Amino acid sequence: MKNRPLPVYLDHNASTPVLPDVLEAMLPYLSDHYGNPSSTHVYGKTMKAAVERARSQVAALIHCRADEIFFTSGGTEANNLAILGVTSAIPERREIITSVIEHPATEGPCARLEEMDFRVTRAPVSSTGQVSAQAIHAALNQRTCLVTIAHANSETGTLQPIRQIADMAHKVGALVHSDAAQSCGKVQLWVDQEGVDLLSIAGHKLYAPQGVGALYVRQGTAIQPLIIGADHERGLRPGTENVASIVGLGRACEIACSSQVDEGVRLRGLRDDLWHRLRSQIPGLALNGHPTERLPNTLNLRFPGVSGNALLDACPGIAAATGSACHATGDSASRVILAMGVSAENAIGSVRLTLGRGNREEDIEYAAKALVKAWLKLAQE
Amino acid sequence: MKNRPLPVYLDHNASTPVLPDVLEAMLPYLSDHYGNPSSTHVYGKTMKAAVERARSQVAALIHCRADEIFFTSGGTEANNLAILGVTSAIPERREIITSVIEHPATEGPCARLEEMDFRVTRAPVSSTGQVSAQAIHAALNQRTCLVTIAHANSETGTLQPIRQIADMAHKVGALVHSDAAQSCGKVQLWVDQEGVDLLSIAGHKLYAPQGVGALYVRQGTAIQPLIIGADHERGLRPGTENVASIVGLGRACEIACSSQVDEGVRLRGLRDDLWHRLRSQIPGLALNGHPTERLPNTLNLRFPGVSGNALLDACPGIAAATGSACHATGDSASRVILAMGVSAENAIGSVRLTLGRGNREEDIEYAAKALVKAWLKLAQE
Repeated sequence: MKNRPLPVYLDHNASTPVLPDVLEAMLPYLSDHYGNPSSTHVYGKTMKAAVERARSQVAALIHCRADEIFFTSGGTEANNLAILGVTSAIPERREIITSVIEHPATEGPCARLEEMDFRVTRAPVSSTGQVSAQAIHAALNQRTCLVTIAHANSETGTLQPIRQIADMAHKVGALVHSDAAQSCGKVQLWVDQEGVDLLSIAGHKLYAPQGVGALYVRQGTAIQPLIIGADHERGLRPGTENVASIVGLGRACEIACSSQVDEGVRLRGLRDDLWHRLRSQIPGLALNGHPTERLPNTLNLRFPGVSGNALLDACPGIAAATGSACHATGDSASRVILAMGVSAENAIGSVRLTLGRGNREEDIEYAAKALVKAWLKLAQE
Repeated sequence: MKNRPLPVYLDHNASTPVLPDVLEAMLPYLSDHYGNPSSTHVYGKTMKAAVERARSQVAALIHCRADEIFFTSGGTEANNLAILGVTSAIPERREIITSVIEHPATEGPCARLEEMDFRVTRAPVSSTGQVSAQAIHAALNQRTCLVTIAHANSETGTLQPIRQIADMAHKVGALVHSDAAQSCGKVQLWVDQEGVDLLSIAGHKLYAPQGVGALYVRQGTAIQPLIIGADHERGLRPGTENVASIVGLGRACEIACSSQVDEGVRLRGLRDDLWHRLRSQIPGLALNGHPTERLPNTLNLRFPGVSGNALLDACPGIAAATGSACHATGDSASRVILAMGVSAENAIGSVRLTLGRGNREEDIEYAAKALVKAWLKLAQE
């Protein structure tokens, strides 16, 4: 049997490859160096030093202090820790504001709080997927504990006006959390400029391995641990540190620090090229998401008259998604796209194409041809 | 400056090296293979298949069904998920039984439940560190939700009579959880034979990487997730799977399956050799823990008239611990050793020497000589 070449990978918002440089940084901590970072002997000290170096590297990417970074097992845990940890630390404020388009890792803990009689307001979004600052303003009051809005949506890449939201929230003494799993490493981030009190990072969205993430917690923010145990991560996240993966996350952040701007320009160019190629050949093709305030690698498109799943099935040479990988099931329309006011009939034609460091111009040419060909075939059926 | 050779590593209960075969199994999932296991394209499917293969490997080690294994970020999270997950799923039973010598990853969530007005009974232990089955029996009643006792204590290696405890607990309808972080991979484990409903495994205690673990949950056991999000691990543990580390855990379990018995015999031989060498030269040296019902790699000793920390400081050629790495602080006596009825004055002389796959006879010879020499020097001061 002839080996088929692997499809062109256009699903970087689902998960990125580990960069060779990241793996190289990790390898010593999966071989020569071992031991428990809490141990006081030389083995432990070497591991501990690696964790602290990585903490500084992560902090440098988002422009915070190293001691404001807490390592977690990933973005989902970081979001849960932020939302459940802050609300349990500030029990007198029992209202939460989020949006209708949040990832399950945010919507999940919010729904759990709702079961515990918290009042949860889910702000609507505009046709470009931007959260309504007006709705958030209307919901904010002295009982608001936390506003949690992702910095960029994973499906459309639309960036949110976090700073504006944070300014409003802080006026009533509420805290602000933003899930930056998708944006961190793709666009520049200054936690002070965004005005957030908490910010989530996921390793496997920025070329570090799966199973590691971080939560930024602004100094002085009230928060309680979700997992309880010994004193790791100053008691906020017990459990022996995931040293090799933490080192990988640190190195990935360092690489992002030095190259994310240039890489963003390159990916935006490739992405817009793909968009122009497709739009010129597929009448009625529409963009899901904000035309400019959007991650440089993300292209979420509505193909007219077909289902996104059928289109991708007809393009075995492309690996992409119809929505978030976390609910890559049946043929139902994405709730994110529906929330933007797209009809169910049209929403079903959505496909998310997300570019990354491995993609080159030839991938774009190939993908454009394959998608046009498949769409023409399906649209004629 | 001359490079000093690394000390002899005798701290395997704190953390084990990653075995070369384990790393070899992981590497493809940190390089060639990437993508989100939830994605439906070939990248995702390859990752998903790797996770499911690892699940079977873990299940084979403890003799359960693959669908009774849920991957976590480590042992601490597995314990928290078991204890907090079961108690929140069975709200009508508000009593917990544990012991006075549990690891912070068990004591922590139990203490949190106590704050939430659960009644928590902490059974005492005997002079050999075995939990009092009598005390557990006396505490059990129809309101008991869960009994949680580690299979082997991390400091002394003493094995607990889990089956006996489980039989008693099940008579009143209580569930039984055991933290097997220390024993899994060192001694054979059949979940049915132990009678447990939940069992925790930690990767970095059995030559897999840090940051991965598993919770065995007997089919039909009521349990709720601790972290909330999408449907990963059938909803019990959301978050993109830590594929490379999960693959490593699977391979480590496979290796343990085929070699843990022989390796246990080898380590017991080395350990007992160390014990005999030390005992013959240090009058008053005493064993902390059970003489026979004990992990084959663990030797916890009380050196008379010295502090364990001072002794280890005087032995820079040995990397060992005075207690659990998770509270490797000052010169205070271990609460585990104190709970066994040892006086604070004597407990302070305790040192834990824990052997592993890398240790050879020459390590034992070296360690014995170094410890005797250091003890003689300190005892004369």
